[in-house]
Amino acid sequence: MGIIVQKYGGSSVATTDKIRAVAEHVLETKRAGHEVVVVVSAMGDATDELLAKAHEVARSPDRRELDMLLSVGERISMALLAMAIRERGAEAVSLTGSQSGIITTASHTNARIMEVRPFRVQDELEAGRVVIVAGYQGVSYKRDITTLGRGGSDTTAVALAAALEAEACEIYSDVDGVFTADPRVVADATNLPELGYAEMQELAESGAKVLCAQAVEFAKQKNIAIYAKKTGARTPGTVVRTNAPAAPSGVRGVAHEVKVASIATDTTPERVDAFLRAVHTAGVQLKQQTLSVRGAAAAFAAVVSMDEYGPVVEALVAEHFGPDALRTDLGAVSLVGEGITRTQDVLLGALDVLAHLNAQVVGMSTSSFRLTFLVPSSAVPDAVRALHAAMALEGRPEAVIA
Amino acid sequence: MGIIVQKYGGSSVATTDKIRAVAEHVLETKRAGHEVVVVVSAMGDATDELLAKAHEVARSPDRRELDMLLSVGERISMALLAMAIRERGAEAVSLTGSQSGIITTASHTNARIMEVRPFRVQDELEAGRVVIVAGYQGVSYKRDITTLGRGGSDTTAVALAAALEAEACEIYSDVDGVFTADPRVVADATNLPELGYAEMQELAESGAKVLCAQAVEFAKQKNIAIYAKKTGARTPGTVVRTNAPAAPSGVRGVAHEVKVASIATDTTPERVDAFLRAVHTAGVQLKQQTLSVRGAAAAFAAVVSMDEYGPVVEALVAEHFGPDALRTDLGAVSLVGEGITRTQDVLLGALDVLAHLNAQVVGMSTSSFRLTFLVPSSAVPDAVRALHAAMALEGRPEAVIA
Repeated sequence: MGIIVQKYGGSSVATTDKIRAVAEHVLETKRAGHEVVVVVSAMGDATDELLAKAHEVARSPDRRELDMLLSVGERISMALLAMAIRERGAEAVSLTGSQSGIITTASHTNARIMEVRPFRVQDELEAGRVVIVAGYQGVSYKRDITTLGRGGSDTTAVALAAALEAEACEIYSDVDGVFTADPRVVADATNLPELGYAEMQELAESGAKVLCAQAVEFAKQKNIAIYAKKTGARTPGTVVRTNAPAAPSGVRGVAHEVKVASIATDTTPERVDAFLRAVHTAGVQLKQQTLSVRGAAAAFAAVVSMDEYGPVVEALVAEHFGPDALRTDLGAVSLVGEGITRTQDVLLGALDVLAHLNAQVVGMSTSSFRLTFLVPSSAVPDAVRALHAAMALEGRPEAVIA
Repeated sequence: MGIIVQKYGGSSVATTDKIRAVAEHVLETKRAGHEVVVVVSAMGDATDELLAKAHEVARSPDRRELDMLLSVGERISMALLAMAIRERGAEAVSLTGSQSGIITTASHTNARIMEVRPFRVQDELEAGRVVIVAGYQGVSYKRDITTLGRGGSDTTAVALAAALEAEACEIYSDVDGVFTADPRVVADATNLPELGYAEMQELAESGAKVLCAQAVEFAKQKNIAIYAKKTGARTPGTVVRTNAPAAPSGVRGVAHEVKVASIATDTTPERVDAFLRAVHTAGVQLKQQTLSVRGAAAAFAAVVSMDEYGPVVEALVAEHFGPDALRTDLGAVSLVGEGITRTQDVLLGALDVLAHLNAQVVGMSTSSFRLTFLVPSSAVPDAVRALHAAMALEGRPEAVIA
């Protein structure tokens, strides 16, 4: 049997009791005959607590030093997990991102994995050990510690699975896989047994928190199946893989973000250029960017998540385009599914539903896999529930049969 | 002007407020024209909190994993200090033990520095930066993270000062240098303006907590002057250096430990050998070991600090010699001074003082720099006070004149 890569999120290792439970679960997999590589996140709120300390000593902490600081969270959980596994009589060793050969760009706090050289991981596996790797971090070619940004531990797990040619990559968290909508908003949202990579990427970029979009992109490139499961549960969860059968209605699920901002301005190409460079330097991710240039005039628009980038975005937009270019009282509701825009059916149906709710649609964007509607923040929960019902996502046939 | 290495202990960086104060102090030194290398310990009780977590997941945590876990404490404080210095407009960079070229043995939790290759430290200093180095840790030739044991940050500072040919090594803590006795026990203990390396080593090994014995040993080899100072104070503190003038009475100070154990057994050379190997593996440091072998019989004795090694020592002695070989209700009082045993004056005077107190002397050992008396734990504080007074250490001439 082959290598299994398992990733455990912050809520799964939040206490030493939970770490002991993870140790048991890892050893079950090992006893079933697999070689096991475990990727861990920081314990619970450890990263947020470190971040708060950073802001106590500096208004705008240096990003290299932030990486040095934040990378310790995973090191604590991995060392504790290794101890807990050894306590149960098995061999285990923890390895930092650097020791695991996770080589990244030098873009601190938002680095991308460039290459994985997992020689030491392979050596330790051959010696019969469970290998525990710090998620979310790597080492730059300058030999500095880097972190991968939000959801980075997922990316570590998938990248390692690819480099090790693993049999499977399992992502454990406190939710039972991917749902047709956020169950906290839609009571009858149902588990999705399987979906495609592009669908998962669009769901993740539209607000679904289960898997990080960059990790899915990596998995797609290397054709690695990702199993999203609930820690401690015996349910199958969700598999993200190639050739997942299409959703019958064309709609796989509904994702949403309650707080986004729209940027829209009539300006010059030079100003847009300067703004985009500043955005890149600040590590902000823009979505749904559109630009149309006519001679010396340029119309630029984009959407951005305010939960993640609020204050930075406000400052950058005010500096480059003036404060009026930003509208911050918005939310986004997205319908996601392979081929969702092949016909206009879903789009027209969704607009009907939103009109019926008196939810003003102040913006729209589409891709091959997604329709996104910008509506006032206050209208988001009702819009999600109404669209979920209208697209007949509750009690989906495959979920009922399975 | 040359390089100054400054080390700040855990109490000096216990809060983000204190870290900001350290940042100011470092920048004062930099503004005076020095290149500054700062070595930091973990914040306050951070290391003890991590250790408690380790014992929640494993009865006897693996030592490599303990090093992985405990090394994060210094990384947190160094990244925060770098941010705080940058916040004040100066350039600063934090470096791990590995990045600083601190190469150690592979003896986890108790590694020794074998070599310092401070190339990156030198590069960063040349670029005009304050360099902040994680104390207490290095990297083994196997490329694993190691820690140096108690007081290891002092050793890091002295070893770096030696490798960088620094002008001075300053050790900052919450006490104002080295005293004639612990001021919490002896109210009129006075500050020692200067003392020799061997005296400081003996004081440290006999219970004085200001400087770590291994660091002093390093300083002695490389002839580096160590300045022990109180963080935030303008007092001169203590300098440990070569050719310090001898103490007039021959006695430099009194050190003590309230909880030690004596090991004493009549056994065989083989059993002693097995015991010493087990002690080495467990990382326990024995003091004042004596062994006399006659044919197949061996009498072995030693003293050990119970605060540091209590449960381990009890288990090891019980396993190898039986529980009766250990006596744990003892304390140790030591008189330290260059040439203290050149005549028997001090020894006989001390025995008089202890007899007068009815403090039963259950053991004694001497070196060229030290007389140590084992007495019941309960007799230690009175013995320290009485010996301090008898040796006329209060209001010492040099302290009064200075």
